[in-house]
Amino acid sequence: MRLLSVVLSGGAGSRLWPASRQAFPKPFMKIGDSTLLQQAIERGQACGTGDLMVVTNKDHLFLTKDVLGQMSDPPATTFLLEPKGRNTGPAIALAALQCARQFSGDTVMLVLSADHLVPDVHAFVASATEAFRLAQEGSLVVFGVSPTSPNTGFGYIEVENVSRESQGVKRFVEKPDLETAQKYLATGRYYWNSGMFAFTADTIIAALEKHAPDVIRAARHALETSKASGDSINFDLHAFGLQPDISIDYAVLEHASNVHVVPAKFSWSDVGSWPAVSDALTPDASGNTLPDDVVALDTTGTHVQVESYGPKVVATVGVRDLVIVDTPDALLVLHKDSAQKVKKVVDVLKARKHDTVHLPPVVHRPWGTYASLKEEEGYKVKRIAVRPGEALSLQYHHQRAEHWVVVQGQGIVQIGEVEHKTSPGQYRYIPLGEKHRLSNTGDEELVLIEVQCGGYLGEDDIVRLADTYGRT
Amino acid sequence: MRLLSVVLSGGAGSRLWPASRQAFPKPFMKIGDSTLLQQAIERGQACGTGDLMVVTNKDHLFLTKDVLGQMSDPPATTFLLEPKGRNTGPAIALAALQCARQFSGDTVMLVLSADHLVPDVHAFVASATEAFRLAQEGSLVVFGVSPTSPNTGFGYIEVENVSRESQGVKRFVEKPDLETAQKYLATGRYYWNSGMFAFTADTIIAALEKHAPDVIRAARHALETSKASGDSINFDLHAFGLQPDISIDYAVLEHASNVHVVPAKFSWSDVGSWPAVSDALTPDASGNTLPDDVVALDTTGTHVQVESYGPKVVATVGVRDLVIVDTPDALLVLHKDSAQKVKKVVDVLKARKHDTVHLPPVVHRPWGTYASLKEEEGYKVKRIAVRPGEALSLQYHHQRAEHWVVVQGQGIVQIGEVEHKTSPGQYRYIPLGEKHRLSNTGDEELVLIEVQCGGYLGEDDIVRLADTYGRT
Repeated sequence: MRLLSVVLSGGAGSRLWPASRQAFPKPFMKIGDSTLLQQAIERGQACGTGDLMVVTNKDHLFLTKDVLGQMSDPPATTFLLEPKGRNTGPAIALAALQCARQFSGDTVMLVLSADHLVPDVHAFVASATEAFRLAQEGSLVVFGVSPTSPNTGFGYIEVENVSRESQGVKRFVEKPDLETAQKYLATGRYYWNSGMFAFTADTIIAALEKHAPDVIRAARHALETSKASGDSINFDLHAFGLQPDISIDYAVLEHASNVHVVPAKFSWSDVGSWPAVSDALTPDASGNTLPDDVVALDTTGTHVQVESYGPKVVATVGVRDLVIVDTPDALLVLHKDSAQKVKKVVDVLKARKHDTVHLPPVVHRPWGTYASLKEEEGYKVKRIAVRPGEALSLQYHHQRAEHWVVVQGQGIVQIGEVEHKTSPGQYRYIPLGEKHRLSNTGDEELVLIEVQCGGYLGEDDIVRLADTYGRT
Repeated sequence: MRLLSVVLSGGAGSRLWPASRQAFPKPFMKIGDSTLLQQAIERGQACGTGDLMVVTNKDHLFLTKDVLGQMSDPPATTFLLEPKGRNTGPAIALAALQCARQFSGDTVMLVLSADHLVPDVHAFVASATEAFRLAQEGSLVVFGVSPTSPNTGFGYIEVENVSRESQGVKRFVEKPDLETAQKYLATGRYYWNSGMFAFTADTIIAALEKHAPDVIRAARHALETSKASGDSINFDLHAFGLQPDISIDYAVLEHASNVHVVPAKFSWSDVGSWPAVSDALTPDASGNTLPDDVVALDTTGTHVQVESYGPKVVATVGVRDLVIVDTPDALLVLHKDSAQKVKKVVDVLKARKHDTVHLPPVVHRPWGTYASLKEEEGYKVKRIAVRPGEALSLQYHHQRAEHWVVVQGQGIVQIGEVEHKTSPGQYRYIPLGEKHRLSNTGDEELVLIEVQCGGYLGEDDIVRLADTYGRT
């Protein structure tokens, strides 16, 4: 049996602002020691899947490669790069078509979401093994979670009776209202739809042909007009956009007769809100989930997380059931009961066109990261980190000169036509209008402190003359 | 009638951490548009006092001069610089002796605390006018505040009956326990002791001679052995330390018969805790005191203040009666009911020898300020701001080289024996071990971004060869 992990990595996760941003969504958030995306990939590996396919927005390719680069045993990966958001229907159709042509039609696809949390991997493997068996027999398998509350954020799956055995599905139902969810819960006949699936490529393609021919047709067209580049498949924006915006549930699972539900014998969370994040961590004796150095007096049920440029201490006094998330450019103080309203905060900030909606404080680029440490009239200080083997574009600026001090790593600074080898403690000056480029030629990260001086310091004052990443 | 403001400026204000620190105490905190110290000085000026005497720790001279420098009409000022903390007894004795010799013994001293808040200056002037009249007649006047709660943080003054008229005092009592304070409040015969006074220099000196001869004798000795330097009087550490650590209440007011209380016809706060800070500000319709750009959803009775190096947004959701104070190196989230426990936070941090107990994120020096923007293995980035006419010491470092980029202002950089004129956008390199100095020769602040590179970057790796401020 050939097994392929298909990880769907999308979504903005605005309910987890300010840790998650549009350009830094939930899969890249760390819960515990690693990101949710890494945990999803490792979950697939634990089930014996050799290869990996990631369906994600093209802007997140480099963040995704960062995650893979930090793994001790990263799988061989194919990236399906979406030029814009579509739903799970097209994503799974594309993955299945690509799987069939790259591997084989009888490959079992384990479809995972990149932003779910499953702490007990062993229990997951047990359920997945059962799912693979059914998938090989031609079933469309969905992992069902026994509901613990009348959650209105999930779709529900009706069966004969919720049990520990896999069984056929009576029907799929949409996210219900609270009253309906309460009814479902009371009957004992409904699972939550976890959004995790298993089927062979041939089985899901056949089901799409039968129940959603427009989806599979549009996916074929999108794949035919796509361009492969190394391990990535880039879709044409127009062809991709012709695909209907539809979930796999709507498109196929609600209609197909060969759907089986495998009960999740593992605890599971879609980490859909801040309380879900703290629930996923091990609390201390006071029910708090917070870093060791927080001074918490008379504090219970409170979650604290801090990301800062320098040392920062947090003290909480006399508070209960709060979520406190501090980043260099945004601070959230939230009562856990109001967790669903974080989305409203993001809406307010969107209306203000506030940067913190889109960009994280540390901005990821194909070549590495940058962070603004200080900005005042006439100057800006940045920390720039370039990954080994990477290089910024050859570029110049109309309105600013730059002072560069390398503080870590080995590299080359090109200024005009001259290339200068550079190492920690060295300085280079980039005059206004002069073309320049920074490359990391060493084995470790190259870190640079940049002081920009000029009348206008926006990110858009950049003229790219040559770029490894096709951004000219 | 000659009038002198005497402002007592001391105290660590650990209950207002992290906005107030040992090296940046309460008088330097802004409440509303200006610091408490500036408000105290202006309160004196409103009463018609021409000159000013400030009694403060010598380490706070430059912070104090900063405050005066920012005032549109700063008074002529004499600084009595304490080498260590003593109590109000010695402070007032020294001020009275200095007043008598610098001005005249019949000068009326209006003694104000630098960390009180009196929003209605006009009402204060009315009470002060009455106090001055009594002081000229030979009274020791204390401003009494009608108690609104059984506060255990103040001393109390017993009179015949609390009224709107000034009257003689029956007795002073120490900070009571809660039960006693409740009794006092019920009788209607007690004022809070505001710690603000008025008397002539001669009157208080005579009272000290009579009731606390050891205090006035030690103060005379401390003043005789002091050294004047410009507008400052520096005390000898030993002679200063010989003064008893005693309050003016204990030393004199409890014993003297010529004490009058003038009722405060103004609202008053000693800003002794975070709720007192928010009470001093005008709340919005939801009872919040916070900057305009805070996103406050479902938030009531909450105080927010933010000090950050770059733009930072704060969002509060579903919270009530919190105090949120965010600084670059410390964040406090406090329920107003637990305000007295902030001191415990400081105690915990003291035990950890945590920097945030002592130093504010922006550190004040005689020549200006510095702030650490980023520190990692091998390097540190600082913003250094030098005031017009000031200069850092001529210095060198054993373990670090420094890269300097001037981003604002005009100055001179001395490196070795060579002086370089410098202006915004210019760079200088300070090799390890090379002597160097930075001076501001322009009319505006000189701002520099410094990147230090080296194996050890502590503030103590500094050898001062020459210094304007006597720090060699």
